[in-house]
Amino acid sequence: MPDLSPNITVICGGVGAARFLRGLVRVADPASISAIINVADDMVLHGLSISPDIDTITYTLADAIDPDRGWGLRNETWRAMEALGRYGDRNWFSLGDQDLATHMQRTARLSEGASLTEVTAEIASAWDVGVTLLPVTNNTVSTRVTRTDTGEEISFQEYFVGTQHSVAISSVRFDGIEQARVTAEAAEAIRTADIVVIAPSNPIVSIAPVLDIPGVREALSARTGSCVAISPIVGGEALKGPAANMLHELGLEASATGVAQLWSDVIDVLLIDDVDAAHALAISECGVTPFVTDTIMASPTRSSALARSVLSAGHLHSTRSTQGPTP
Amino acid sequence: MPDLSPNITVICGGVGAARFLRGLVRVADPASISAIINVADDMVLHGLSISPDIDTITYTLADAIDPDRGWGLRNETWRAMEALGRYGDRNWFSLGDQDLATHMQRTARLSEGASLTEVTAEIASAWDVGVTLLPVTNNTVSTRVTRTDTGEEISFQEYFVGTQHSVAISSVRFDGIEQARVTAEAAEAIRTADIVVIAPSNPIVSIAPVLDIPGVREALSARTGSCVAISPIVGGEALKGPAANMLHELGLEASATGVAQLWSDVIDVLLIDDVDAAHALAISECGVTPFVTDTIMASPTRSSALARSVLSAGHLHSTRSTQGPTP
Repeated sequence: MPDLSPNITVICGGVGAARFLRGLVRVADPASISAIINVADDMVLHGLSISPDIDTITYTLADAIDPDRGWGLRNETWRAMEALGRYGDRNWFSLGDQDLATHMQRTARLSEGASLTEVTAEIASAWDVGVTLLPVTNNTVSTRVTRTDTGEEISFQEYFVGTQHSVAISSVRFDGIEQARVTAEAAEAIRTADIVVIAPSNPIVSIAPVLDIPGVREALSARTGSCVAISPIVGGEALKGPAANMLHELGLEASATGVAQLWSDVIDVLLIDDVDAAHALAISECGVTPFVTDTIMASPTRSSALARSVLSAGHLHSTRSTQGPTP
Repeated sequence: MPDLSPNITVICGGVGAARFLRGLVRVADPASISAIINVADDMVLHGLSISPDIDTITYTLADAIDPDRGWGLRNETWRAMEALGRYGDRNWFSLGDQDLATHMQRTARLSEGASLTEVTAEIASAWDVGVTLLPVTNNTVSTRVTRTDTGEEISFQEYFVGTQHSVAISSVRFDGIEQARVTAEAAEAIRTADIVVIAPSNPIVSIAPVLDIPGVREALSARTGSCVAISPIVGGEALKGPAANMLHELGLEASATGVAQLWSDVIDVLLIDDVDAAHALAISECGVTPFVTDTIMASPTRSSALARSVLSAGHLHSTRSTQGPTP
């Protein structure tokens, strides 16, 4: 019964993807799940290599994430950051004392010549994460956004954490992406997936810098299984973060339909929230099958329900595609 | 009265030098004191640039050093190191949570292009250290020791911390020293010193990699003031650390006389402990003036007394040199 444990590959940003994966592992075998993770938010801070999306997913699947902050570790302390205060204003990006160990380990292994793919697997293994966590690329890609007010180009983290995404932006680019290449492991996970899922992460700064890595769209095109996305925009708003503002500021439609338009070349099905049921027709007109359900992952149970819906939608689409249109 | 605030330049390792400086600042104007500090123990660990001797001196002069351990900060916590344990055996070299901030700051500033001299001054200033702290060089020099048992060459920290200096060694070398160069600031501090002091630090792995940096001996030769050393060997033993064993294993005499022999080309006066009074004649025969006193810095008060003795000895020697031999 291969359908009971299909290979599932999830294209991921950080928090939204982590919550989806936490539900998915309750309804599918973790060993059959691969997460292809955005690295364009990665940075070197205080000499340490930091991969925010990878860490958020690792800590969430390890049930070690801080549930209130939504990032970093539970029962965290901030002694290093407090001490850093003595040296000036370097502590705008908070790193907990325990969390520092992850960045130190990553930095040390990278400096020893390990790839980010290897280090990510080692760290995931140390946290007993059963899902295969794959950075989309081992190359350095850095999201840069241009502030509308000053015209200045700043890093994603300066925008997201430094300004608390309070400023409007006029453009986004992924520095280094032309020279980057999808890893063999990530390409293979996409090619062999029965279902590819696009997690409900920020389309502009989390999903785009995965899809746009050279080799990713080719791997997606080469497969025959379904591709199911979950809209990160619900009722015209992002549940968390600046996705809706960003879409709007970049001249895109901040709605479930806007998401369907953005991803219509890669997705077959878009899960939209009950509140967005009115978008179903417009989404169909993009050539994307709408699937209306509860998409709010307010609890692990509801995350699991959403994961089950994704698998149903993917399975349904595959069956329909194989059988041809229903008479 | 220039003699009341002579320029004093102290050649330093870590703990012994730090204790001496703590006494010296009580009897001389900190603004007239420069410390030329060994960097051959420096290392990159977990991606962080660590300068143990500079930090020990900074923290000691800031009265922030842990008095029991003799290194690192007081009231320290070890959350990052504990968390690092999850990733394997990387935590052989303990870094406290607050201490990590110093290494992060140093690493960040170096990666921004600041020199170690600049970063050291900035960190010292943040801790309100009045003494001018100068790394002897901005270049990378790494102490390597060869284990007698295995013939393997290991880093100083692997020897000192990893094996707790429990293995015999057959040789010591300073990787990179030929290409290194004394900084302009350190050379100037030596040239303009009324008194140069060699602190009671390990002669083999703390003082040698300062004296042997190209440019240091030239700067010492170019000056006319006295050079006063304090023997780190008392009663044939080091007060702390492996200095006596190292001298012995390298075929040198582990005694106050052995120290005089080692430094006879640069020092005029050697302060030796009361228990070593019997070495005075042999030391004189090396062309070095012995000065017998209490050299055990068991308290800040005794450190101050030793510092006062050093200044007296230096002044006495200078006066004698100027006046010629007493009739």
